[in-house]
Amino acid sequence: MKKNLAEFLGTFWLVLGGCGSAVLAAAFPNVGIGLVGVSMAFGLTVLTIAYALGHISGAHLNPAVTVGLWAGGRISFKDVLPYIISQVLGAIAAAAVLYVIATGNGSSIGNFAANGYSEHSPGGYSMNSAIVTETVMTFMFLIIILGATDKRAPKGFAGIAIGLALTLIHLISIPVTNTSVNPARSISQAVFVGDWALSQLWLFILFPILGAIIAGLIYRFFDSDSKEQHTD
Amino acid sequence: MKKNLAEFLGTFWLVLGGCGSAVLAAAFPNVGIGLVGVSMAFGLTVLTIAYALGHISGAHLNPAVTVGLWAGGRISFKDVLPYIISQVLGAIAAAAVLYVIATGNGSSIGNFAANGYSEHSPGGYSMNSAIVTETVMTFMFLIIILGATDKRAPKGFAGIAIGLALTLIHLISIPVTNTSVNPARSISQAVFVGDWALSQLWLFILFPILGAIIAGLIYRFFDSDSKEQHTD
Amino acid sequence: MKKNLAEFLGTFWLVLGGCGSAVLAAAFPNVGIGLVGVSMAFGLTVLTIAYALGHISGAHLNPAVTVGLWAGGRISFKDVLPYIISQVLGAIAAAAVLYVIATGNGSSIGNFAANGYSEHSPGGYSMNSAIVTETVMTFMFLIIILGATDKRAPKGFAGIAIGLALTLIHLISIPVTNTSVNPARSISQAVFVGDWALSQLWLFILFPILGAIIAGLIYRFFDSDSKEQHTD
Amino acid sequence: MKKNLAEFLGTFWLVLGGCGSAVLAAAFPNVGIGLVGVSMAFGLTVLTIAYALGHISGAHLNPAVTVGLWAGGRISFKDVLPYIISQVLGAIAAAAVLYVIATGNGSSIGNFAANGYSEHSPGGYSMNSAIVTETVMTFMFLIIILGATDKRAPKGFAGIAIGLALTLIHLISIPVTNTSVNPARSISQAVFVGDWALSQLWLFILFPILGAIIAGLIYRFFDSDSKEQHTD
Repeated sequence: MKKNLAEFLGTFWLVLGGCGSAVLAAAFPNVGIGLVGVSMAFGLTVLTIAYALGHISGAHLNPAVTVGLWAGGRISFKDVLPYIISQVLGAIAAAAVLYVIATGNGSSIGNFAANGYSEHSPGGYSMNSAIVTETVMTFMFLIIILGATDKRAPKGFAGIAIGLALTLIHLISIPVTNTSVNPARSISQAVFVGDWALSQLWLFILFPILGAIIAGLIYRFFDSDSKEQHTD
Repeated sequence: MKKNLAEFLGTFWLVLGGCGSAVLAAAFPNVGIGLVGVSMAFGLTVLTIAYALGHISGAHLNPAVTVGLWAGGRISFKDVLPYIISQVLGAIAAAAVLYVIATGNGSSIGNFAANGYSEHSPGGYSMNSAIVTETVMTFMFLIIILGATDKRAPKGFAGIAIGLALTLIHLISIPVTNTSVNPARSISQAVFVGDWALSQLWLFILFPILGAIIAGLIYRFFDSDSKEQHTD
Repeated sequence: MKKNLAEFLGTFWLVLGGCGSAVLAAAFPNVGIGLVGVSMAFGLTVLTIAYALGHISGAHLNPAVTVGLWAGGRISFKDVLPYIISQVLGAIAAAAVLYVIATGNGSSIGNFAANGYSEHSPGGYSMNSAIVTETVMTFMFLIIILGATDKRAPKGFAGIAIGLALTLIHLISIPVTNTSVNPARSISQAVFVGDWALSQLWLFILFPILGAIIAGLIYRFFDSDSKEQHTD
Repeated sequence: MKKNLAEFLGTFWLVLGGCGSAVLAAAFPNVGIGLVGVSMAFGLTVLTIAYALGHISGAHLNPAVTVGLWAGGRISFKDVLPYIISQVLGAIAAAAVLYVIATGNGSSIGNFAANGYSEHSPGGYSMNSAIVTETVMTFMFLIIILGATDKRAPKGFAGIAIGLALTLIHLISIPVTNTSVNPARSISQAVFVGDWALSQLWLFILFPILGAIIAGLIYRFFDSDSKEQHTD
């Protein structure tokens, strides 16, 4: 129950901070934060929650991360569904709060911070580019998560590495898909935008999870005989 | 006495650094630091003081933080008022120094870095948006502070997580209220701007403190039975 | 074998993240990440892999680093060639993935993120400027790597220092050479651009390695009598 | 001798990285790093050298820091002069290398990254604003250095806090004086610019050192009875 509340609050923060900075501040006239600021914001939501609530729930904040950690043998199957439900509910709650704030100056939400491809890709990238991007970015995100939380990695630094990995992923890929790598984040925006965002949502559920599962399986190769390798 | 001096110096730095970067450098022609730079500056004041003076006073630097830590059972009631007085005095001293520097090229202080809503919101957001923003942002700030300084969290990293949380909060919410989450910071600017800034000040005292108290009470839920949960 | 896979994956990430952010996001209209964002991206690839895979392979991700660590007496000669081969293959694989993504909106790759001098320097800097820049930047990069991984340095922080050193190097020198300090990164872009990028490639192989070797030899001076110096 | 080489190399890096990013990359067309990037660069030079060479010399890299640490009772008087000489020589060597690189595209060095006030302040700020700024900024820099290296502060984090303090100081004060807080940095640029930069140099030697001495004396107050206060 504590774990589920922590995942709810943490994913609430990820969406309010990441998508909120994009909607409210990215294109603010003259002094807007741009994609650098949005990338920093997404990463810092994870970094801050990792240190604040990581000791409660592990701070997954992302169904793809939860599935990837299960594929990598780090968590048990019975935790997967409750975590995902808490994450999606937290993400939608954040989108609702963001809706209230963002419409408070009379503007509509437009495309909010929804993810998209082809004509809904910020830079006009194809579905194929989107599939490759979401799969590879989530794959590397999970490699970093699995590696930085490995027993052999330096203690305490995982929150910095994982948070800044999400910043890095956004620095690369916002122009392609507006960057998902997180189905809960994508769902939360799509339910408010409706229309095209809902019809493109499948890609941002399927391929982050696929990338995460591949990473979970590949990282097992680094685990094998880890006693022999442990030279630190 | 040492604690009070530390809170005075630390809040002095928060206002001089955060508000100073906004007033002096945000809109500097062509190479200005923009809202990204101001957000970094606010966060780095807290990060640097957390490591420099955290071992003296805990580095609250913010009346809402002090009240939230009291609501969360981390400090005793007798410390609350002396801390708040030191913070407000330090903030006003910084505003005075900033006044001297900023007017040294012949410009007026204009709106300084005062917080506001409706017609004084940077992006024209309503009082309602301001209330939601200040309450939720301070709530999450205190969740992060309480969590990152929890005995179960990794040792030594709290200053990074808390400082960067303030950066994140500014990345999201400067367009809405110019971001307070800190009554001492708001007071310090309002006393120099006067007029509308003083008449809107109540919101930036009341709602940061409200958000902080709610966080203090909710985090107690994570505290209960912490021995059972302690699996690290 | 694990080490080689780790170097392959890590250098894949360095090129996909660093060059990818440059190609896809640096000049995105209005909200592009600019050279600050590209500098952050390059550094964060190293920071994240240092914590994720440093315990497997040491996370060199760069032939000049591997050679410099050998010159500094940190690794044995038999590891040098397998590491370099893994790095170059990982870098080329990343360039191939980036090619697929980047051409997905119908644009050509142009100059990709290739390194160059004279008429191919972003700021029109001469070959002489390029030689000084690549040699000195790689020299200082290796001094930082050798120092931060020294037994006397604080434990666990090397990944932060080394990653942010690469960010710093890019903040300084992108206008001069588009910043290499890494032959694998340069090779990966040149094989896709061909033409001038291939004919200027020699400089970005030779001088990073030269700078790294000088650093390896000079840092040995700090090693000598380290027992006497060890006052921590 | 090792200490002096470390101070030489470290201050070389501070000037090459900080002033180099300003001269080469700050105003690069369209994607320039601006004052945010320059601020990051200055801070990262200190952060990286703190972890790389801090265990050799303490990584002062700045005559004001050396004097302030002496005023605070942290180093002995006999180390002050050799450190300062090494720092100034390293700074001038970096300026010479930067001169070679920067003039390699046919441009003159203009004002390089020299510090100035009144008509030579980037934002046209008066001598009085410059004096207040340099004194207060260096004062707070030394408070952070003395605090973060205090025995009671978390181990290992000082390099992050001190480096990012220098980033913060630049985010605030580049428009006022181009930010010195470091006489070696100011001297190195003035000797290449000559003229007005040399005639304004006194301010950037005198007031950083004054601010540092005040901080050294004030921090002693936090030291007193530190055994009683040590509750960590």
